[in-house]
Parts: sequence; C-alpha cells; structure tokens
Amino acid sequence: METNSSGGAGGGIGSESSTMILHNAVVITMDSDCRVFQNGAVFIHIDKIKAIGQSRDILQRFSHVAHHILDLHGQILLPGFVNTHVHTSQQLGRGIADDVDLMTWLHHRIWPYESNMTEEDSYISTLLCGVELIHSGVTCFAEAGGQHVTGMARAVELLGLRACLTESIMDSGDGLPPSWGIRTTDECLQSQKKLYEKHNNTADGRIRIWLGIRQVMNSTDRLLLETRDAARELKTGIHMHVAEIPYENQVVMETRKVDHGTVTFLDKIDFLQENLLAAHTVWVNDTEIGFLSRSGVKVSHCPASAMRMLGFARIREMLNAGITVSLGTDGAPSNNRMSIVDEMYLASLINKGREVYAKGTTDPTALPAETLLKMVTINGAKSVLWDNEIGSLEIGKKADMVVINPFSWSMVPIHDCISNLVYCMRTENIVSVMCNGRWIMRDKKILNVDEEEVISLAKEASSKLLRRAGIKLPSRMNVIP
Amino acid sequence: METNSSGGAGGGIGSESSTMILHNAVVITMDSDCRVFQNGAVFIHIDKIKAIGQSRDILQRFSHVAHHILDLHGQILLPGFVNTHVHTSQQLGRGIADDVDLMTWLHHRIWPYESNMTEEDSYISTLLCGVELIHSGVTCFAEAGGQHVTGMARAVELLGLRACLTESIMDSGDGLPPSWGIRTTDECLQSQKKLYEKHNNTADGRIRIWLGIRQVMNSTDRLLLETRDAARELKTGIHMHVAEIPYENQVVMETRKVDHGTVTFLDKIDFLQENLLAAHTVWVNDTEIGFLSRSGVKVSHCPASAMRMLGFARIREMLNAGITVSLGTDGAPSNNRMSIVDEMYLASLINKGREVYAKGTTDPTALPAETLLKMVTINGAKSVLWDNEIGSLEIGKKADMVVINPFSWSMVPIHDCISNLVYCMRTENIVSVMCNGRWIMRDKKILNVDEEEVISLAKEASSKLLRRAGIKLPSRMNVIP
Repeated sequence: METNSSGGAGGGIGSESSTMILHNAVVITMDSDCRVFQNGAVFIHIDKIKAIGQSRDILQRFSHVAHHILDLHGQILLPGFVNTHVHTSQQLGRGIADDVDLMTWLHHRIWPYESNMTEEDSYISTLLCGVELIHSGVTCFAEAGGQHVTGMARAVELLGLRACLTESIMDSGDGLPPSWGIRTTDECLQSQKKLYEKHNNTADGRIRIWLGIRQVMNSTDRLLLETRDAARELKTGIHMHVAEIPYENQVVMETRKVDHGTVTFLDKIDFLQENLLAAHTVWVNDTEIGFLSRSGVKVSHCPASAMRMLGFARIREMLNAGITVSLGTDGAPSNNRMSIVDEMYLASLINKGREVYAKGTTDPTALPAETLLKMVTINGAKSVLWDNEIGSLEIGKKADMVVINPFSWSMVPIHDCISNLVYCMRTENIVSVMCNGRWIMRDKKILNVDEEEVISLAKEASSKLLRRAGIKLPSRMNVIP
Repeated sequence: METNSSGGAGGGIGSESSTMILHNAVVITMDSDCRVFQNGAVFIHIDKIKAIGQSRDILQRFSHVAHHILDLHGQILLPGFVNTHVHTSQQLGRGIADDVDLMTWLHHRIWPYESNMTEEDSYISTLLCGVELIHSGVTCFAEAGGQHVTGMARAVELLGLRACLTESIMDSGDGLPPSWGIRTTDECLQSQKKLYEKHNNTADGRIRIWLGIRQVMNSTDRLLLETRDAARELKTGIHMHVAEIPYENQVVMETRKVDHGTVTFLDKIDFLQENLLAAHTVWVNDTEIGFLSRSGVKVSHCPASAMRMLGFARIREMLNAGITVSLGTDGAPSNNRMSIVDEMYLASLINKGREVYAKGTTDPTALPAETLLKMVTINGAKSVLWDNEIGSLEIGKKADMVVINPFSWSMVPIHDCISNLVYCMRTENIVSVMCNGRWIMRDKKILNVDEEEVISLAKEASSKLLRRAGIKLPSRMNVIP
C-alpha cells in the first residue's frame, strides 16, 4: 500500500493498481438525496465506486485492501462534468468567425473550414478540444456532429475521456460547399452504421456512437424517420440541432406544413423520443415545451452560443415542465471558450437576466446554484443516456470525478460551498480529473498527451487548413509588422 | 545591464533600477491610431514610457542605457486594465447573498455585513479583492463607495495598485441598520473632505480620492448639489449608482417630480457633468441617453451584476451616442467573480444577445472585440479621469501594463489575436502585471503581499464578521457533517 498526501491529488493509479481510497474531501455526491459528506471518502475498485461515505468509516473498512490512499486535504470531490454539446472538429477554427453575421459565419467560415478537414485535422482538433475539456473538469461529452468520427475516436481513446461521438449528417439543403456534395439518405445511414460497428463500445467502453441530424433544413423526412428507427434498433441516441433561429421555424412552417416550428414538425412525424438530445432549442412555444416534456426529449442549453448567435432559450420554463436540461459549450467558433465551468456561470446569469422580459425585473432566484450543478452532472448523464453509470458519485457507478481546490483567491471566502462552485469557480480551481477509474489530469497536468505537442500540432494544422479553405480574416487594428 | 529572457516576464525592476526595455512582444497600444506592433518594444524610465515601437528600433536606440532588457518571447503586451466599479469592502462577503431576491440581498445580507465592518476588515477585504484584480490584469480600479477608506488606502498602497477610492455616502433613506444611523449632509461632506486631505495623491500618486453618492434614494438634494460643488472645487470625480432598478425611477418620479427617472432628475438639478461616473445606468430612455452624452457623463457597465440583479443596460445605444462606457465587476456578492477578463467576455455575449429583443434576432456583430478592449483600457482611463496618464501605451504615459501568454490551450489557435483576447482569454493567461513602472505580479506570483497569508486573514475576518452581523445562510443540500 502506498500512502500519498499531496494536496493536489497526486498518487496515481496505474494499470496494475486496482483499489484506491480518496479521503478527507468535501464529497458532493449529486445523488438523489443530494448528500454532501463534509469529510468524505470514496473507495474505488478498478473503474468503479465500491463505497462512499464519511472518511473515518471508509478508511476503517477499506484501508487494509487499498493499494493507494490519497488525502485530498479538504478539497472538493464532484462527479465529472458532462458537456452535452461540443463540436470537437471546430476547435482548430477558434477565432475564425467572431463578430460576423450568421450567414458569413456559416457560408464563408464554418462550411469552408469543415469541408476542407482531413481525418488528421479532426484528430488534432479533438485532441486540442479534449485538453480544454479536461482542464474544465469534463469527463464525458457529446459530440454535436462533426467531421471524421474515426479521427475523433482516436483522440478520445488517447485522452482517456468518455464520449458519445456523432457524425455531421445532411442529406439535403442549399448552399453547401461543392467539395462536400450531398450524400444520399442511404449513404448517410450506411456511413453511421459502419461507424457504429467500428467504434461503439470501444476504448474500454468509453466511446459510444450516436446518430446525427445536423438540423431539419438539411434533412429529408426519410432521413429523419430512418434515423429514428436505426437509433431504436441500435439502442443509441440521436443528437440534433433544434429550433436554433426564427428562420428555421419559418422554413419548417412553409415546407413541412405545420403551424409553428421544428419541434411541432418533429412531434407530428413521431420523431420526439427519450433518446433525442436536442441542442439549443431556443425558439419553442409553450405547446412545444409540452411536446418535449411529454416525450422525454433532453435539451442541451448552450448559453454562450445562444447569447452570441441564437437568442434566449426558455430554460426556466423547460425545467419547470420537467425536461432534463443539461449544458453544452457548443464549438470554439461559436463561444469561444470551451469551458463548462464558465457555462455554468453564464447559464445562471443569462437565465436570471432573461426574466426581466417576462416580469419586468430580473429574478436572482431563478436557476439557483444547486440546479446548475445538477445540469452539468446528473442531468448531463441523463442527456447522454448514461446515468446508470455516470453523473453522480454512488456505489456501482464509474469512477468519473473531479478534484477542485477551493482555497485560492478566486473562490475564498467560502460561506456557501455550492454557490461558490457555480459562481466563483474557474478552470484554475480544477486540479485533477479521473475518468473510468484513471487519472487523466493530475495537479493540472494532462497525463495522456503532451499538451505542448498538441498545441504545436494544432497551430500547424489549423494554419494549413485555413489556407486550403481560402479563409482570410480582416485585420481589426492598425498592425505594424 | 542585466539581460533576462525568461518567458514569463521575469527580470525585475527594483527601486534602484530606473530604465527597462520590454521587447519581442505583440504590443497592442490602444492609442488613437490603434497601432499594434507585431514585434514591438517599450522603453521605460522609472514610472513612465519613454519610447515605444518596433523591437529592433527600440533595442538599437536604448539598449546601451537600459538597466534591464526583458525578452517577452512573442507574448502580448497591453495597457493595464481599468475596472471602473468595484466594491472592495464586499470581498469578504462573497457568496453571502446568492440566489436571493433584491430585498433579502440588501436588508438581510449586505447592509448587516457592511454596517458591521471594522477598518481592519476593510483592509483585509481590499487586499483579497486586490489580489483577484491583479490576477485579472487590472492596474487601476474605481471603488464604488465602501466602508473605511483608510483601510482600503492602506491595502492599495501595499499592493502597488492605482485606485480612485470613494466612501459609501448616504444622508437619508429608509431601512438602514441602526448601527449605521444616518449621517447628516454636513457629516457626509466633511468626512470625505478629510479623506481627500489625508489620502489624495498618496502612494506615489497612485491613490486619488473621489466623492461618493451611494444612490439617489439615499441622498438629499442638498447632498447631491454640495457634492457636485465640492468635486468641482477639489477637481475630483463623483462615483454614483444610477438608475439601477425600475423601482428607483418610480421613487424618483414620485418624490422628485420628474417625468422619467434618476437621470432626468440629475439633469434637472444640473448634476450631470464630465466628472460623474455613473455605475450600471440600466433603466434609461433615449432622452436620458441624450442627457448623459451631452454632459459627458461616463458609464460603468457591469454585465454580470446587471444580468443577475438589474437588467439589460442599453450599451450599444450609449456607445452610439458617443458616451464613454467602461466595464466594472461590481462587488463579490453581486457577481461573484471579480475578473474584468470575464467581464469583457460577458459584455460581448450579453450585448449581442440583447439585440434579440430589439430586432428579433441576436446581433453577433454588436460590440466587436476591439470595442470591448477599448472599454477595459482607454475608456476605463477616461472614466476615472486619468487618461492623460494611463489607458494606452504611449510616450509619456505611466508604465501600467499587462503581459499575456496566449500560447496555452485556452487561447490557441490564434487566427485573430484581438478577438482571442476578448473571447478566449482567461485570468490563467495573465502572467505579469506592472503598475507605475513596477511589477506587482510576475509569473502569476503577486509580489507585494503573501497571497496565502491574505487568504488566511480573509477566512478568519470574514467568519467573525458574519457572526457579528448575525448572517446565517441556509444549507443548499443534505450536508452530512
């Protein structure tokens, strides 16, 4: 047995090690009883939590069988965060589309960028994105639908993260780059089934393959219906951008003959089901919130990108209707921070502020801290259909967790630990991250890849990609070379 | 001559050193020509910038007289940020008033907290606040009006920051804690004049004393008018919370017999002048924006606290009207991050999002990155009436500057340097900060105080203060001790 008492969660678990105690931590379980152990511990066996409770109790019961015992010195232990809407392919495109209108964003920046990616670009982009996700405490994410899933999978496997990967799927729509062409419905479905066979349940079960629908305006009815049926058959989820902008709803009303927008149409064709993860879902009316609630659809709220590009999602109303709402960062060219920690802070502010339009004043009590913490943990796990194994610290669940140091200038004094986690915590406070029973970051050092090397690869790949795509950005100031 | 090439801006300037070159940096001057030197340098003599330009040129002209030459290895050099609305006294109260309505916030949390502070509490609170400000790149701030200015001044002097300090001033109003009592108008003015005599232009000129008006509902007309006249006489500024909530405007309409709100009333009594820094200024109509613009009033926009408590300020309209708008963090119990870096990011998102109500869709082109960078530098300097000496990197100005490392996972790739500074940069990227020609942080280490000691003092003082004030927070989860 090795005892390690480094404040920053040092003390490792190697492939040969199979049992570990983390103790002397504020353990915020996020279980259904909202238990918080003021001086708590967890006992881990390989990849799973075997026991959880008060430190003295866990130490007494398991010290003799633990290979490693790690004193967390009063730091906070939380379930790993789940980021439910991430465009990993877009990380190399951070900063290529800031302060431009939506059409420029899509037609002159994002489409040329994505359509010129290679599988290697996708691999590097996912590595860089993954590094940022881990630094912000994420152990599991849902890819929003991107380019070259095989490249993503390679990066996720290496980083040690957990992910639901999804291909960007479109079988129709105007204005797509010629190099992409339009795939037929059958090609779209075949491609995803192949990816499913190749990658689903790989990387020690950390990778799952989901089906994608980029958005309704790029989908035939047949694609939607066969995707729904294929997901049912494969027992997997569907990730789709839903009701992002008023224009989308208009087009749907005109072309699909319904009286409101995308959600109404999806309900009509019986597409709304428990395995649908609807991203953004900004432009919905009360009836549509009812449809989403009744059918158990999950909603990924991306406050930064909503503010920048889409509008105010009706999150309070959705939560009140019992919808499982989680948080996502969206992609780097829409945000541009890929930090779920910042997204918690933002979600709180924006949704408290949105009330001013409903009631005439803001409502500082809307979306309280405990709700936001649920959104990034257990609600995230439910959204990616994985809450039987992740999202809370409970016996039998996977050891996916984050160690937070709350004793720095950014979080003290701590009068209200839960609220400080949501409103004060920054990525700087996240010191160590474990996924599937293995540390993937310790003392702020990413363990499975060399950060410097990833950054250097990313710089080179992104410059080449922009050149290939013919993307040139105007200069903002008077630059003297 | 000592040459130092540490990547993190090592290499010091002691009291005995008088000249220094910082070179091989992307120098973003924020001057009126918006010059950016891709490979730039500054030459500093004691506390002032003596030359600025391309590295090879500056090195050639000044190497022989420089005591220190520091290679910044391509990092970014910016003017120090100005945070124009900070409650330093409230730092010890971070987390005491989250997710509660405004009346609970004020009557049961903030007033009991502030009215129980000692001068030592104010000193410690300002130290802790200052540590956070420096970590976020701030070299100058405007105190919003707080308790025990002498305590604040002691902390600011020690930290090496620049500040406009202001006492919290109220000569009327309902519901104030009995321990505060109500000071007479004369007491309010006398107290501030004494503080001015004692502290103005101290700490090598880094401290200035401003006059305060907490808000219109706590001010008699006489206090307002005599404050205006005293400020004119002392040649200093006035810091006041203006038009924060609809209720304030209602009260003003009823009691002061005007047809809109606070700004209309202040215009009527001829209070609006160039030396007024109006904080928040959320609830103003077009006419009032006209009054503010015409009279040269400066506005401090605090996006986080506005979202949480107040509402959407009409920032785009104010900027269009030519008003100097800067950014502030407000106090820790209203935000709770005290990071001007996060505030830039927020200001962008919130103001792009606000357009959805004016136009039906968000406007991603609103408040572009260069505008936000202006708000935290030169506009900040103008707001605190100090732009003759700070706010841009120009010959003759004070050497107040920030070194930013943009090469980490949070900012790469850098396709658009200016936009990455606003939308991606986090406090983690800020490595070194200089104020008045002296480093106050180097390689993320605060130089003039011991961070650990400040944190430890703050923990103790804040616990005692809450106990004295009788503030007890409800538990949010099921805590097992």
